[in-house]
Amino acid sequence: ARQPKRAVVPAAEPRQARDPSGQHPLTDRDGNARLQRYEERIKTAFDRIVPVLKRISALQHASDFERQAQSIARDALGFDLPEHMLADAWVTQLDLRRLFAWCVFETYRRMTDDFFANDPLGGHEIRDFDRFLQDCGFHQLDVTPCADGRLAHAISYVLRLPCGAVRRKPYAGGLFDVENTVSKWGEVELGRFREGIPNTADAPTRYLKSVIYHYSSVDPHHQGCAAHGSDDAAAAQGALDRLLAFRQSVENGFCCGASVALLLIGLDTDTDAIRVHVPDGEGHMDLTQSVDALKVHAITRDLEPTAARARVAELVKAHAPASADPGMLRLVARLIENNLSQIDYVRQVHGGHYADVGHAEHFMGVGIGFEEIQLRNLTYFAYLYTVEEGAADLDVGRKIFSGLNVSRGLPIPIVIRFDYHGGVPGARERAVTRCRRLDAALAGRFADLADRGLLHRLLVVRDSDAGAGIEVVGCSLTAPTAGGH
Amino acid sequence: ARQPKRAVVPAAEPRQARDPSGQHPLTDRDGNARLQRYEERIKTAFDRIVPVLKRISALQHASDFERQAQSIARDALGFDLPEHMLADAWVTQLDLRRLFAWCVFETYRRMTDDFFANDPLGGHEIRDFDRFLQDCGFHQLDVTPCADGRLAHAISYVLRLPCGAVRRKPYAGGLFDVENTVSKWGEVELGRFREGIPNTADAPTRYLKSVIYHYSSVDPHHQGCAAHGSDDAAAAQGALDRLLAFRQSVENGFCCGASVALLLIGLDTDTDAIRVHVPDGEGHMDLTQSVDALKVHAITRDLEPTAARARVAELVKAHAPASADPGMLRLVARLIENNLSQIDYVRQVHGGHYADVGHAEHFMGVGIGFEEIQLRNLTYFAYLYTVEEGAADLDVGRKIFSGLNVSRGLPIPIVIRFDYHGGVPGARERAVTRCRRLDAALAGRFADLADRGLLHRLLVVRDSDAGAGIEVVGCSLTAPTAGGH
Ligand SMILES: [Zn+2]
Ligand SMILES: [Zn+2]
Ligand SMILES: [Zn+2]
Ligand SMILES: [Zn+2]
Repeated sequence: ARQPKRAVVPAAEPRQARDPSGQHPLTDRDGNARLQRYEERIKTAFDRIVPVLKRISALQHASDFERQAQSIARDALGFDLPEHMLADAWVTQLDLRRLFAWCVFETYRRMTDDFFANDPLGGHEIRDFDRFLQDCGFHQLDVTPCADGRLAHAISYVLRLPCGAVRRKPYAGGLFDVENTVSKWGEVELGRFREGIPNTADAPTRYLKSVIYHYSSVDPHHQGCAAHGSDDAAAAQGALDRLLAFRQSVENGFCCGASVALLLIGLDTDTDAIRVHVPDGEGHMDLTQSVDALKVHAITRDLEPTAARARVAELVKAHAPASADPGMLRLVARLIENNLSQIDYVRQVHGGHYADVGHAEHFMGVGIGFEEIQLRNLTYFAYLYTVEEGAADLDVGRKIFSGLNVSRGLPIPIVIRFDYHGGVPGARERAVTRCRRLDAALAGRFADLADRGLLHRLLVVRDSDAGAGIEVVGCSLTAPTAGGH
Repeated sequence: ARQPKRAVVPAAEPRQARDPSGQHPLTDRDGNARLQRYEERIKTAFDRIVPVLKRISALQHASDFERQAQSIARDALGFDLPEHMLADAWVTQLDLRRLFAWCVFETYRRMTDDFFANDPLGGHEIRDFDRFLQDCGFHQLDVTPCADGRLAHAISYVLRLPCGAVRRKPYAGGLFDVENTVSKWGEVELGRFREGIPNTADAPTRYLKSVIYHYSSVDPHHQGCAAHGSDDAAAAQGALDRLLAFRQSVENGFCCGASVALLLIGLDTDTDAIRVHVPDGEGHMDLTQSVDALKVHAITRDLEPTAARARVAELVKAHAPASADPGMLRLVARLIENNLSQIDYVRQVHGGHYADVGHAEHFMGVGIGFEEIQLRNLTYFAYLYTVEEGAADLDVGRKIFSGLNVSRGLPIPIVIRFDYHGGVPGARERAVTRCRRLDAALAGRFADLADRGLLHRLLVVRDSDAGAGIEVVGCSLTAPTAGGH
């Protein structure tokens, strides 16, 4: 299921092997079509909210208002609006801020239910990739992209990996929590020792930790990684330092040759092309040396598929240190090949560069979880347990949405989310308590917005053991209307 | 080293076997003397601060003030006062609030340095106890006392266990963090699989999690566990529920018969006598059934040591379910026997009941760590990472010290502390950052106190891997004097 399906290209002159559409021979056209349908379906659902509410607003004093509004909403959004929000319009005025927030939350909820019920990206077909990963010498792939919304599609789109097979832990600037990752490493090791999952502890495989830093080829000095002041070298070095700290922690903390494998990946957020810094046999990585998928694409696009694949492998080897691990080279070649499809996707669907070079998120996601967010620039993330620790990220989010929403009179919709392990008694209640505490702290920090009806929160939890969808446990919209608007 | 040394009592009539001092034949007299010296030395050091400062205050306009003050401090406290705090007294007034906080912090620092350098309680002689514990069928003892300062001496005094051999994790009301404990359990299991530490994974031993709840025999309705509204049954049930949730979590999360052992202990904070709810063979515990050390003391005090020890074991067995695990019975008998010494300690040293039935702490300890605090009612603890999560505990602390200190015009001294693993690169810097963030949040929450000079903080970190002492990384006293006093 992971092998890209591709069109059979008849043998021909090398010049003529080139696909008339300009796509790479290894590009997964079916996959691209499926990903495009998904992206358009979800983005459209969010994009329609404002125009629909504008139409409905214009009708609010019509005699037949409620029926007309519901009919428009059902047609354009696919769902009914809450009756009580419409019912009062004739006497006062339609509260469009509340209605807008409600529509964003409802669209999010429907997207999420679909994600967990129908697996629209095939992210939970993980068997083939798990086997391939182990063949390459790794029993767990743990990826930290920057928490920037422009990397939210890194697993499912940029790298074309099944999200269910990869641990994704985004952090601002790629600066992941070392202690937390050591703890996760230990958990995986224990699973291997106790239960032979994903393989037994005597198999000579390693835990692979990867960070994806990012940069902007279109506007490098302004649209790079905000956490590193759009300084690409600092972003790469910061990520590398954190990776080395993680390996050092495992090696210092455990004897018997405990170690882990590391992989540093750079992403151009305009083209979605990656570059991979392949480690040498000792695990050293060189920031000035990398395999560049855009160059690989250009060099191999006129070849036939079999030759192209062989050439990709050669190019990876040629741009890697001589002592690089063969399994690592295989994995990197696969990542590069997968990324060729995404390069063509951005070219075909987005004209080579994304139109939204900067921020264009539809809501903030705050807390821990959000596996269902696999689309670029849909969500601004702040992964945190408390406002106290995450204040800086939240303030950045407020600034972004002040430009996107508040400046247009629209509220900032925030999804507060905590995943929990259903097998742990009391874990759900603790997750709900966390949601409520975070909600109160958020409402306190941004009281000026909340008082004006410009901040709305949906509180959700999810049992990550059950593989089920989310559960809504609260919403600022169900509270009595706040004054001031 | 763990076997209590005891006086040899000559054979005699049962009536006359009774020790003239009224002490139990199994009481560790040398141990009691050592513990008493330690308690008096430390408590005296803190108790002397106020009288010494009163004497010094009375001299502050004398011509020879600085020399006299230093001489008094050196004599009574064992250290010099900071010269700059004395130097300005002639022109304005001696800032006794700052001087008081400084003395508390200095006394704390000296106590802590002594603890880690000299092991005054022998808490790091752990070999014998570790072996005994494994003989009983347990490879790790993890104890959660209530965070109440009246249980801070539970390991070293009440249970007479070497603190270095026991994981102590206090929580308000004994309501420990299940997720954190499962994670610790996994870490210990991994150590057994990978490194055979403390024993190999195939040894049929279990992780033993214990909670100590508490009650007050002198004033049961007011001086019980505040977290449970002084409702003893609720305190016991709350602790039991948390223990069962922990076991359930391990059993649900891991197959292959993963499980843990549980033990529930009650403590009378007036007499330091314990009662132990011994689990049956299935691990069930009955809140209405327990072995009561005070009764065991009364029943066995007239026997000779050998007979007394045998009788203790019989009494434990008689008050435990018939199916109780033999190793568990051995361990409980040891805990009861150890506690007999503490019962006599409280009788001899404190007249049978502590004079300080309620709060009498000298400072607040906030953060994570504090292994060196092994004395009753010295410290009010708030174990937390952020003010946001720990606000309730901090507010209780403020209330306590408003009565103890602020009402007398004295500031609340707070030690902010985070331990870290030195083997993890960057861990020290992150611990320091945590200290600073918590300090800022504390100063914000209690700004009214801080502005009046009634809140002072010492910031310390400690490398728990190195076994070394604490490192002071900041102090509100080194900042420019706050206005308003
Ligand atoms: Zn998934
Ligand atoms: Zn970034
Ligand atoms: Zn110790
Ligand atoms: Zn308590």
